[in-house]
Amino acid sequence: MQTSASLPAPLARNLRFVLVGTQHPGNIGAAARAIKTMGFGELALVAPERPPGDEAYRRAAGADDVLAAARTTDTLAEAVADCRHVLGCTARSRRVSLEIFDPHQAGARLPAMAGDGPVALVFGRERTGLFNEELELCHAAVHIPANPEYGSLNLAAAVQVLAYEARMAGLAAGGNLGPEDRRDLASHDQLEGLFGQLAETLEQIDFHKGRAPESAMRKLRRLFVRSRLDEQEVRLLRGVLADAQRMARLATKGPI
Amino acid sequence: MQTSASLPAPLARNLRFVLVGTQHPGNIGAAARAIKTMGFGELALVAPERPPGDEAYRRAAGADDVLAAARTTDTLAEAVADCRHVLGCTARSRRVSLEIFDPHQAGARLPAMAGDGPVALVFGRERTGLFNEELELCHAAVHIPANPEYGSLNLAAAVQVLAYEARMAGLAAGGNLGPEDRRDLASHDQLEGLFGQLAETLEQIDFHKGRAPESAMRKLRRLFVRSRLDEQEVRLLRGVLADAQRMARLATKGPI
Repeated sequence: MQTSASLPAPLARNLRFVLVGTQHPGNIGAAARAIKTMGFGELALVAPERPPGDEAYRRAAGADDVLAAARTTDTLAEAVADCRHVLGCTARSRRVSLEIFDPHQAGARLPAMAGDGPVALVFGRERTGLFNEELELCHAAVHIPANPEYGSLNLAAAVQVLAYEARMAGLAAGGNLGPEDRRDLASHDQLEGLFGQLAETLEQIDFHKGRAPESAMRKLRRLFVRSRLDEQEVRLLRGVLADAQRMARLATKGPI
Repeated sequence: MQTSASLPAPLARNLRFVLVGTQHPGNIGAAARAIKTMGFGELALVAPERPPGDEAYRRAAGADDVLAAARTTDTLAEAVADCRHVLGCTARSRRVSLEIFDPHQAGARLPAMAGDGPVALVFGRERTGLFNEELELCHAAVHIPANPEYGSLNLAAAVQVLAYEARMAGLAAGGNLGPEDRRDLASHDQLEGLFGQLAETLEQIDFHKGRAPESAMRKLRRLFVRSRLDEQEVRLLRGVLADAQRMARLATKGPI
């Protein structure tokens, strides 16, 4: 589990999502939302077919600030003029004369790239993607390895995937990641204490009924060792066993 | 760059995307599209506010076959009854009594999980997510580590992220992955049967002693879900519980 909630400042500041020739203004709004949910804020629009209006703001939900701040230019060259790195998304996985990354590989490179200055992630038109001359302005290509029989991601969905990978890489690069598991695992002695009490309890509640006790205990040990019990869980299980033992004693002595 | 274009057959077949109480039918369509672009096809709907209509089919674009094949049930329990693993998506990153994975960690586990049988990825309502009692039906939680100041991913965007991670993990695993181990993992129903009997037993042996029973049961559920119990282990544990219950009855009735 990630524990850090913040991105490296250069990544948060320098990553720019550039939408080229977007046909449906609603997708621009949905892209703004996707960007903001991942902690980014810079959106650039290159010659959208229509400027973002009501539908775009509706789809942006709480990311209307990102949408309102989006800068619009006539050409991709203007939108990325100050960028140190430009990555272009393409649905083509071959016959692209650029190095191609998948989103995870691209994400992994973004924190370092953002240390150099502004970085553009460029997304093409809904139907036709980026033109060849636009892709040639890019320094590398990003390809989402989609279903070859139906690879048509919604534009905002593609933005979401790239923004997600950028965030994951940023959180990992943040340096504040804790271990995956912060539980205090039970010690060997604590586990043996539990198993001793479990074996005793099985006797007392007459679980074996004449069968050899080893087989059941072996299976239960295996199960609980696999569970990687923490100290609190060992105490909990021992508490349950203690009450079962108390009932077994009462059952052989008389009613409560 | 990934070179394989095909998912392991068990993953493609067994991964089920379950949408609970969806409020906007358009999101159901967009989710169907997200699922299909990543090579999956099984969509289940639990009590959607409105059934998918024109807007849903429009947003599904070429994934109308996935949408048309979606099964609708009244409850989450029905939708996941046959599932070997149930992962619930939550916007909460703490105070969840389940093991929590990020999407990448969850994705990495899916190819092996799918070798065991059907696996559910469960998504809650747009505004309110999954209710606590729905999350408690899940075996683990998935949390997208979104911007803490604006973490509101669109439902289909969240589906896209998880489907993407599932696909990336599947492509990395190639077609050669078998089940993680060859045990017959207990089904959701079998686990719920065990938990029901466990709750009953705790009452009968007077484990709670006036304390609220929920906390202990939550911890025990979490422990046993994490253990990935097989069918034989469930039978073994239920046998132990049955004997503890027998002792508790005898304790209140009289000596053996």
